[in-house]
Amino acid sequence: MDYVSLIRDIPNFPKEGIIFKDITPLLANGPALAAAVDDMAAPFKDKNIDLVVGIESRGFIFGPGVARELGCGFAPVRKAGKLPYHTESLTYDLEYGTDTLEIHVDAVVADHRILIVDDLLATGGTAAAAGELIAKIGGIVSGFSFVIELDFLEGREKLGSIPISTLIHY
Amino acid sequence: MDYVSLIRDIPNFPKEGIIFKDITPLLANGPALAAAVDDMAAPFKDKNIDLVVGIESRGFIFGPGVARELGCGFAPVRKAGKLPYHTESLTYDLEYGTDTLEIHVDAVVADHRILIVDDLLATGGTAAAAGELIAKIGGIVSGFSFVIELDFLEGREKLGSIPISTLIHY
Repeated sequence: MDYVSLIRDIPNFPKEGIIFKDITPLLANGPALAAAVDDMAAPFKDKNIDLVVGIESRGFIFGPGVARELGCGFAPVRKAGKLPYHTESLTYDLEYGTDTLEIHVDAVVADHRILIVDDLLATGGTAAAAGELIAKIGGIVSGFSFVIELDFLEGREKLGSIPISTLIHY
Repeated sequence: MDYVSLIRDIPNFPKEGIIFKDITPLLANGPALAAAVDDMAAPFKDKNIDLVVGIESRGFIFGPGVARELGCGFAPVRKAGKLPYHTESLTYDLEYGTDTLEIHVDAVVADHRILIVDDLLATGGTAAAAGELIAKIGGIVSGFSFVIELDFLEGREKLGSIPISTLIHY
């Protein structure tokens, strides 16, 4: 599948100087969206994944489909204050300021193997924070699966030796 | 599928006096999540749906799977400022204050038939606003599919004569 032709460059979003990779043309294309979900799941089919965790909010678009391909369930990691039950939370540094992610304390069964799904691996801060959250509540982070990776930001260096799969590299 | 046993009541969320219906136990159960997606799509299988639109952010969890079942693509409706390309937007009244939804101006092909997906039909304000947005950019809203409907709030009265499917009624 030629995913690259379905990604649109948006200059100066969300701020001046940044070229945003817009995935909405890919989402709008039914066969491409189905293929992307299958290709995100494929490298983890024999890895005994027990649960897929998706990061709000574009991780929610791909995570449940990947979970279905792997025969498991899905849990959301969300921004602060969005999850209704008791949560574990983690505040991490952004380029300017900080952000906070949360997960339900009962989202993970102890020692279950977790695959983290998001649309984009950029600096790796968000993905690393999600991994840390899952470890805090007893899960074993066993993989990361992204649609896009911005190689020049070297985000995968923040994710240690855990297997990472990406459909499109820039 | 016994969905009701997989919905958890959370008292006083997001504010005092409200009992929040937490769907995360359903999401965590792989077979239940797959069945929910199939059951949300089933009533629309012969309705020539061209595109599924999901409302941020829990609509993103179910929408792409429903789209796959219906053999079409997916487009997001998001909160203000989140979509990178040119948008159409709509501000609508909440119980206290207002909220704004946006959609990409090119999300819909003229006269295509659109199914709107979200987790919850409560007062219907958000779903009605999403429908209005889609009409503004030329789509034909041809159905709504929800996981949960709070019947006592009579939200479906805001959605006119468009077919509505719901898995769980309270």
